[in-house]
Amino acid sequence: MANLNPAAQALARIKQDKQSNLAVAADLTDANSLVKLVQQVGDSICVLKTHIDVISDFTPDLITTLLDLKKQYNFLIFEDRKFADIGNTVKLQYGGGIYRIADWADIINAHVVPGPGIIEGLWEIGKTKGAGLLLLAEMSSAGNLATGDYTKTAVAWAQKYSDFVIGFIGMKKLVDDPKFVTMTPGINFADKSDKLKQQYVTPEQAIQGGSDIIIVGRGIYGASDPSLAAKQYREAGWGAYNSL
Amino acid sequence: MANLNPAAQALARIKQDKQSNLAVAADLTDANSLVKLVQQVGDSICVLKTHIDVISDFTPDLITTLLDLKKQYNFLIFEDRKFADIGNTVKLQYGGGIYRIADWADIINAHVVPGPGIIEGLWEIGKTKGAGLLLLAEMSSAGNLATGDYTKTAVAWAQKYSDFVIGFIGMKKLVDDPKFVTMTPGINFADKSDKLKQQYVTPEQAIQGGSDIIIVGRGIYGASDPSLAAKQYREAGWGAYNSL
Repeated sequence: MANLNPAAQALARIKQDKQSNLAVAADLTDANSLVKLVQQVGDSICVLKTHIDVISDFTPDLITTLLDLKKQYNFLIFEDRKFADIGNTVKLQYGGGIYRIADWADIINAHVVPGPGIIEGLWEIGKTKGAGLLLLAEMSSAGNLATGDYTKTAVAWAQKYSDFVIGFIGMKKLVDDPKFVTMTPGINFADKSDKLKQQYVTPEQAIQGGSDIIIVGRGIYGASDPSLAAKQYREAGWGAYNSL
Repeated sequence: MANLNPAAQALARIKQDKQSNLAVAADLTDANSLVKLVQQVGDSICVLKTHIDVISDFTPDLITTLLDLKKQYNFLIFEDRKFADIGNTVKLQYGGGIYRIADWADIINAHVVPGPGIIEGLWEIGKTKGAGLLLLAEMSSAGNLATGDYTKTAVAWAQKYSDFVIGFIGMKKLVDDPKFVTMTPGINFADKSDKLKQQYVTPEQAIQGGSDIIIVGRGIYGASDPSLAAKQYREAGWGAYNSL
């Protein structure tokens, strides 16, 4: 059965409408560059993944602009905050502060290491917003500890809290259940690594492993023509998806 | 051998000078309340633990004020950001954004789940600042996954990166090595739990388990007289420490 969470339903619809399973990881550090990138890649993506806390000149106006772009290009906004604290604290971090993430992010994510209280804390805010939560069940970085029983626990908690949890950050499909999407980071046509232990896989490798959404960062925003790169990643991802 | 990291050395000195192993978790959501709390408890603490991203009216002026208070009362500032991303991303989150954490936090912390790249990424910034890193080897929340091999890995990486890692967030002493301090969260005279799965232990229980620094949040900022509560927690912690 499909996931009834509003963000999960919107994501499924946008994927089909735009024939895209591409998320861009917009890891840029100033507002103008971020906005420019979204204008370049907006047609090709179903998800804009942000790290709002790396923007050195953030103001609430940036959120207004991103929400306008969201309407214009039809994508969801995934704030990659990787919440990682106890329930009482993540509630404050998600709903408050300068960023007020709950007011604009359709999708957020959380580590499972703090225990299920992190999901319950975020849900106290997220349920009023129709937001969807991804659990970090696996990571793309070398030597990471999101493996084995850790990953299995994330899957079990997703089942338990499936009103809110719409899927996983993972390198492959982790459970055969249409309620959950798998979004895979570290995607690059050139599979290699960076000097801080990020490890890349290609769109085809990810999709063949059962991933639903490919997350591309430096392969797009670091390209000489981000618009063209986004088109190419969208085609590669969607093509691989449809030839399964 | 003592830890040569500048933050570790400053912490050891302040602890002795103020006869305090008390850190206050200042989980308040507006700048005025935070400043007022620091004025109330400043004499009693060796560490001010902040969540800068829950302050709804944050401006850079708040940092200036906190640094003035730090000078006046002699404590270290520990930004409890719980970094939890790959190396390339945490570098940007630590050094940049609106908060510029690297410019004012003496101590930060990180989860180990992303792998050792998170330590290496933070260190690229932290080594220029004399900052110290705590690894989240254990957590205080119910059902958390920072146990067993996960905790052992944190201890192993602390040994490997001990120029930067000054200790652990943990519920007890994890390794008999004077290079590392253990800071224990979830301390409250009334050992119980909150409704989002935080579990409390008393100062005496923590110190008897080998903790070096007790972190008290709601027990102080939620008290009718935070100044008095801080004095009481300082005395309980330091007393337990000296009767070992």
